[in-house]
Amino acid sequence: MDLLKEKIKKDGIVINEHVLKVDNFLNHQVDTKLMDSIGEEFANYFKDKNITKVVTIESSGIAPAYSVASKLNVPFVIFKKQSSAILDTETTIQTPVHSFTKNTDYILMASKKYLSENDNILIIDDFLANGQAAMGAYRILKEAGSSVAGVGIVIEKSFQDGRKKLEDLGLDVYSLARVSKISSNGIEFLD
Amino acid sequence: MDLLKEKIKKDGIVINEHVLKVDNFLNHQVDTKLMDSIGEEFANYFKDKNITKVVTIESSGIAPAYSVASKLNVPFVIFKKQSSAILDTETTIQTPVHSFTKNTDYILMASKKYLSENDNILIIDDFLANGQAAMGAYRILKEAGSSVAGVGIVIEKSFQDGRKKLEDLGLDVYSLARVSKISSNGIEFLD
Repeated sequence: MDLLKEKIKKDGIVINEHVLKVDNFLNHQVDTKLMDSIGEEFANYFKDKNITKVVTIESSGIAPAYSVASKLNVPFVIFKKQSSAILDTETTIQTPVHSFTKNTDYILMASKKYLSENDNILIIDDFLANGQAAMGAYRILKEAGSSVAGVGIVIEKSFQDGRKKLEDLGLDVYSLARVSKISSNGIEFLD
Repeated sequence: MDLLKEKIKKDGIVINEHVLKVDNFLNHQVDTKLMDSIGEEFANYFKDKNITKVVTIESSGIAPAYSVASKLNVPFVIFKKQSSAILDTETTIQTPVHSFTKNTDYILMASKKYLSENDNILIIDDFLANGQAAMGAYRILKEAGSSVAGVGIVIEKSFQDGRKKLEDLGLDVYSLARVSKISSNGIEFLD
């Protein structure tokens, strides 16, 4: 998606060779026109997959998830991050996730009520690095008996192994910008 | 907003006389058609106020903030909740907030870079109860020198004093559903 790549080149801030800050248009301040286009791009790619629901992880995934879900005319479900497991295992599904990027652990949680065996789910997230968050979402969806139609990622760090892990599960991963290198000389993309 | 009130009556779950769960369409699973209408309603009400940016608080405010910001054709900024203050006071503005609803304390944080004296801000949030989150956002915006054009709330608990506190600051508070009573007999609205 050229519009996104241009924006990353123009406004992305290189923190180090692993960390790219996109606070200016994606994570802290959100460029609504760009986000509308991001949703259109995902919706166009997944439009023939009979998606029944979009799933995302709070909180940076919410805007792109809403954008694509609105265009696919389906609801979206926000998986919640909790610092510890909650007692209610009857109505919720929980799975532990380790974030390598932030070096933190959390419990990803969803209510069973919004996921069924009849659902065909599109997982959306802002970043794909080591794939831990998306894999956590996948585990919850499998436990709920839902099908997973694919994974839509706004920015993929292609030099990390998240995509491989998801593809090894048989998932179709569609990333709008695949960053191959982050350096003080600039940002490089695959393709 | 009749569509929202009907949805609350139909799908809202009364936990006790203070707590109404709307996980089915607003907080956990999001009804995108309803959320599109919520954005239209806010955009229509505030359209002549020369809003330059929408501000919200993660994470349940993100969807309605995106909806209205997209329709007003402006960016939106997500104020972040942190468990403790961070050292960087040069580029951020931080303020402590106490949530009476959840009985928790957090630090609300925004980057200075996305707020200026030329901004005329619309604050959007999902719930208004005691007004602490909106007041925190207001303090940050005042410190940044921005004007505040108004506050848009999806569901107001009119039996708590959040609206009064915001109106005492001279703010125009527009709530789409004003809940006057939550009981096992049902949910009542003002108007």
